[in-house]
Amino acid sequence: MRRTVLHLALLVLVLSPAAARPDGGMWMPQQMIDLAPRLKKLGFQGNPKAFADLTGMPMGAVVSLGGCSASFVSPDGLIITNHHCVTGALQYIATPERNAVKEGFLAATREEEAWAGPGTRVLVTVAVREVTKEVTGSLGADLTDLERQLAIEKRSKELTAACEKEGLRCRVASFFEGLRWFETAAVELKDVRLVYAPPSSIGNFGGETDNWRWPRHTADFGFYRAYVGKDGKGAAFDKGNVPFKPRHFLTVDPAGANPGEVVVVAGYPGRTSRHATAREMKDLVEWSYPRTARRNKEMLAILAEVSKGSKETEIRVATRVRGLANSMKNREGVVEGARKGKLLEKKSAAEAELVAWIDAEPARKKKYGGVIGSLDDLQAKRESVRERDATLQALYANSTLLGSARTVRRLAEERQKPDAEREAEYQQRNWERLREGQERVQKTLDLGADRALLRYALLEAAALPKEQRIEAIDTVAGLSAGLAEAEARAKVDAWLASLYASPSKLGDAKARLALFDGKPEEVLAARDPFLDLAAALGPLDKQIRDAEKSRAGAMSRLGPVYMQAMLDKAGGLVAPDANSTLRVTFGTVKGVSPQDGVFYLPQTTLQGVVAKARPGDKEFDAPPALLAAAAKVLAAGKGPFVDPKLRDVPVNFLSDVDTTGGNSGSAVLNGKGKLVGLLFDGTYETIASDLLFDPVNTRSIQVDIRYVLWVASQVSGATRVLSEMGIRP
Amino acid sequence: MRRTVLHLALLVLVLSPAAARPDGGMWMPQQMIDLAPRLKKLGFQGNPKAFADLTGMPMGAVVSLGGCSASFVSPDGLIITNHHCVTGALQYIATPERNAVKEGFLAATREEEAWAGPGTRVLVTVAVREVTKEVTGSLGADLTDLERQLAIEKRSKELTAACEKEGLRCRVASFFEGLRWFETAAVELKDVRLVYAPPSSIGNFGGETDNWRWPRHTADFGFYRAYVGKDGKGAAFDKGNVPFKPRHFLTVDPAGANPGEVVVVAGYPGRTSRHATAREMKDLVEWSYPRTARRNKEMLAILAEVSKGSKETEIRVATRVRGLANSMKNREGVVEGARKGKLLEKKSAAEAELVAWIDAEPARKKKYGGVIGSLDDLQAKRESVRERDATLQALYANSTLLGSARTVRRLAEERQKPDAEREAEYQQRNWERLREGQERVQKTLDLGADRALLRYALLEAAALPKEQRIEAIDTVAGLSAGLAEAEARAKVDAWLASLYASPSKLGDAKARLALFDGKPEEVLAARDPFLDLAAALGPLDKQIRDAEKSRAGAMSRLGPVYMQAMLDKAGGLVAPDANSTLRVTFGTVKGVSPQDGVFYLPQTTLQGVVAKARPGDKEFDAPPALLAAAAKVLAAGKGPFVDPKLRDVPVNFLSDVDTTGGNSGSAVLNGKGKLVGLLFDGTYETIASDLLFDPVNTRSIQVDIRYVLWVASQVSGATRVLSEMGIRP
Repeated sequence: MRRTVLHLALLVLVLSPAAARPDGGMWMPQQMIDLAPRLKKLGFQGNPKAFADLTGMPMGAVVSLGGCSASFVSPDGLIITNHHCVTGALQYIATPERNAVKEGFLAATREEEAWAGPGTRVLVTVAVREVTKEVTGSLGADLTDLERQLAIEKRSKELTAACEKEGLRCRVASFFEGLRWFETAAVELKDVRLVYAPPSSIGNFGGETDNWRWPRHTADFGFYRAYVGKDGKGAAFDKGNVPFKPRHFLTVDPAGANPGEVVVVAGYPGRTSRHATAREMKDLVEWSYPRTARRNKEMLAILAEVSKGSKETEIRVATRVRGLANSMKNREGVVEGARKGKLLEKKSAAEAELVAWIDAEPARKKKYGGVIGSLDDLQAKRESVRERDATLQALYANSTLLGSARTVRRLAEERQKPDAEREAEYQQRNWERLREGQERVQKTLDLGADRALLRYALLEAAALPKEQRIEAIDTVAGLSAGLAEAEARAKVDAWLASLYASPSKLGDAKARLALFDGKPEEVLAARDPFLDLAAALGPLDKQIRDAEKSRAGAMSRLGPVYMQAMLDKAGGLVAPDANSTLRVTFGTVKGVSPQDGVFYLPQTTLQGVVAKARPGDKEFDAPPALLAAAAKVLAAGKGPFVDPKLRDVPVNFLSDVDTTGGNSGSAVLNGKGKLVGLLFDGTYETIASDLLFDPVNTRSIQVDIRYVLWVASQVSGATRVLSEMGIRP
Repeated sequence: MRRTVLHLALLVLVLSPAAARPDGGMWMPQQMIDLAPRLKKLGFQGNPKAFADLTGMPMGAVVSLGGCSASFVSPDGLIITNHHCVTGALQYIATPERNAVKEGFLAATREEEAWAGPGTRVLVTVAVREVTKEVTGSLGADLTDLERQLAIEKRSKELTAACEKEGLRCRVASFFEGLRWFETAAVELKDVRLVYAPPSSIGNFGGETDNWRWPRHTADFGFYRAYVGKDGKGAAFDKGNVPFKPRHFLTVDPAGANPGEVVVVAGYPGRTSRHATAREMKDLVEWSYPRTARRNKEMLAILAEVSKGSKETEIRVATRVRGLANSMKNREGVVEGARKGKLLEKKSAAEAELVAWIDAEPARKKKYGGVIGSLDDLQAKRESVRERDATLQALYANSTLLGSARTVRRLAEERQKPDAEREAEYQQRNWERLREGQERVQKTLDLGADRALLRYALLEAAALPKEQRIEAIDTVAGLSAGLAEAEARAKVDAWLASLYASPSKLGDAKARLALFDGKPEEVLAARDPFLDLAAALGPLDKQIRDAEKSRAGAMSRLGPVYMQAMLDKAGGLVAPDANSTLRVTFGTVKGVSPQDGVFYLPQTTLQGVVAKARPGDKEFDAPPALLAAAAKVLAAGKGPFVDPKLRDVPVNFLSDVDTTGGNSGSAVLNGKGKLVGLLFDGTYETIASDLLFDPVNTRSIQVDIRYVLWVASQVSGATRVLSEMGIRP
């Protein structure tokens, strides 16, 4: 089959020194036109070129939730996505009486469908157009890097503003290291309601233990519905809103996905770094990722300690805990995969080849010569302050109170300027979203956890080397470089005691939102320990932002040259790194040998759920109702959604599509363009593909639509949802 | 294929309530006559009935090392077995200058072949005959259980003595729970020399991490040579001895073992408990095995602590550490396998069926009625003192000094009787072996470890319940039931201080052997803290031995009735539980699905060794020479012992033969009766088959002879060994 040919070709690319950047294939929709023959050869029966039409089928049904992917599955705006993409909503609707995260949720009627909370959004991409010329065309050669970046930002904001005049949500994004720029336009739906999600013992079965692992047995699905005003347009949550009527919705194929069959996945992959330089990659693999893994582990221990004995704290920090654990395992996976796959060695060798290729011809040397050296200089500069910069971010990230203080102060600062001159993040178009974020934090704010994690970041600040100090912290907490650990601890603790001595305005929802909405000069004059701290950190924060802008400006010159060199050298079709824009990837349902002597079969079944189930366990506590229904299937070997060959219900499956974080919840289509599963993870051996695509071992993990339908009908009794998708068990 | 049919049949047996005891198939050689059609159907090309002839081919080439299996592979007495079966010899020949365990050993000439040390034996079984009538025929019905057992022991000793008149080593052993008895006769060769063993980084590659696991990449092989006196008869080690000329030796097939091919394994499996009652099995799974797993874990931690900073102690305790870790993992494996496979539930159900079957017919009820109840009573009695009995054994086992003290005192006691009346273990025929054991302990004796482990057992004695106290310990150490832990600790430590205050005679090789050889009355009168302790424990030791004899006497009445009932009910050919006698098992090279969604491929290759290799790691430190040779193979895809299909050297393989501990080192023969591998382990999912055979998941792990030959020729340069086996790379 063609995929095999593709794989072999990729293998050659990887092994061949001539190919610096093997091509993984998170394709831009418009690239599908050129890829049509490949997809056809894999067995796709529809017209592959249809994927380039964002307003047609099936792309018109594919949506973003911002960080997750999803799809419409009914004419009444029913949306299917992952369970872990609706966890925030479950947390939002949870009450002390009803732990919706644990128990799940099922609206018996449309009236019972529950608002997913502020910040939940559905974005339907309707157009993508190239704007490279508009963004980076004819920028003066005499501009400094900072001026260059400011000009690019100004142009991007102008484009966005013009685009959004049509009532859309628009974004200007860089592709291929700034070589090309595209403007994407999306319809934004803000009234999103939870329809159905199974309990976490089904939807998150396997928990952290099984996360990023195969064999997998997780029903990682949930259903939303998008609502709009009676005029059919996006509107804020209102009981009187009506279901959105999408232009297109996917139809379910209850035959599911089967080994050897073609699958196409459309979604919003977040970020890959396959086109990074060797030095940038070294920074990620040897500094950034191990650091994240270590820090997350330590912070998880702190949160476990803080939560001990308090169910309430445990619930409040649950989202953070899951996020830390997930990214920890991800980073560990990259580091391990990089070691095993000799990633840095391969990258360096490929880069050396690129340099040699450039130097081999005067014309090339003239065009591309020295670009990698310049990129390395840029990276070296960044590395010289990386501990300090990362620690400042950690202060904001670890303390919700400090993070909020920064947000309200930054907003107040920016609001003093005309909208067009504001930093993009603080332009009026983002106020609602920012405000919702400030509303939402109340659900996850826990003062004990806030203080413990801020302490962790402060101790990091205390330990910074002499040339990378955060002076504002040194001043307020009485720290200095080279302080003995015990002494630093004592000073930090003493200062923290004063910081949390009286309740901060930022900890109170009303007061916080009042600051958000307040007059800039009043906000900036307001006194509060956290506002004061944010003010003290402000100058360094600005300094770092400017440095980043300068760097971005330099990148906008160097990146395109670098990328063009690589494209010239590689030739042919190349997918750009993921950047949270809509992409299409395709492949085959197939197993993999993750190591010598072992083979991952392409499917798991109910039998495996039963084998893993351990009553009362935190991660494998499959509910009795599921086990009883499964026992019936296993005894009979037939029943609704049972695969006749397996005599069991297929649960999860592997495919060699190329995906990453952000693809969670992506629709998996079969050769007829019908919905046969949802993507929700990758195998552990796949993670390092974010940096260097491994064409042999990369596998995504999907939930088979048959398991979704089986759980919905046989365990949850969610027949209303099934009927709406046209399914009768 | 036939094996599949057999498997299905077994599956039916397991699932069918009518079959109490599924049949795994560690067959007695004479059973092979009836099994010939099965073996033929699997693809065996020779005459399967030949396996019943112990003095013919191939059985004449198969030997026991006592705890391990092995085979002759040259006309000059060259023997192949596992690396972990020659570790004791490597330890024996190690010097402070040369860590042979780590570095391996290769004798460049026959002269350099090194004596494996006292206690290393090669036993060549030459005859097996049934002696049921002689052992248990016409025993008076009026005998007490103890008298009955003593009569059986007396008859066994008489048979053994008569058998050994021919210069053989004989043994009378019970089969089928005492229903049948067989006498085995073996030639014993005592001058065993080490010829070649790879370094532990090859022969024990993967260490404890990979132990009982797949995928596996271990070159678990080593070579001995048996020497005899110039008259061709077994003799003590003497430089003037000459190589033994075995009647038969196996020839190597350098084509190795390949997926789907039939394999036959001949060796000495140690012990299985498949025919135990439900109550006996419950004792194993719920008490004995979890207890061993827990204790071993704790003792391993103690030994790690004691070894910290002392290379010498580490080497001295290495064998014990490996043993504890291995049995810990084994026991954990049984417990986990029992839980997953619902072993106790299945066993109880099967036993209930057996009872119902017995009760269903008056004739059966008369013959078998009540037997399980009686066995349960016997077991209940044993359980009532199991903590005490196990703790007494732990005292002897944990302290080498106390164990030796017991041995020399017991020997002195027994030597006061005529030889025929001595306990079998202390009859003159065993003195040499016992003495060698006392010689050998010097290599592994470490006073710090001895004291720490004795302390562990003493604290167990301190915690015994009131009705199971060891009074002698209570008296000497001032302990009593219900003492607070801290107090018990203090008393034990105080007493230990006095016990180890002055060097014990048992710690000195010369003094210990003098006691071993000494006049009984002098030995029994000799004073030494450990001899005194052994003397104080003597009465309880005797009491427990007598209780065990009574139990054995009762078992000799009940066991045969119980077994006969099971055989009558099951019908057909059944293999007896393993009992360290020569057995044959056969099957196919094949993979297995250990859990839903995963498949273990049947072979591993050099590629996997390279992938696992981690320089400097304790367990995965593949030597540079091996990695360099492997790199060549991987680059070329051909070379000596490379499989043309895999384009790599096969390393280990799986087969569904039925084996257990003791089978280590067993020859694996192909359909032509040629040597294609060595058995050395089972998968983790296999371990519980020792209690209840799992016909679906059980897999043994073998090293492919091609990896043996490749390592020998391409890494070690052991061409002399290869040539002797008729192999030219």
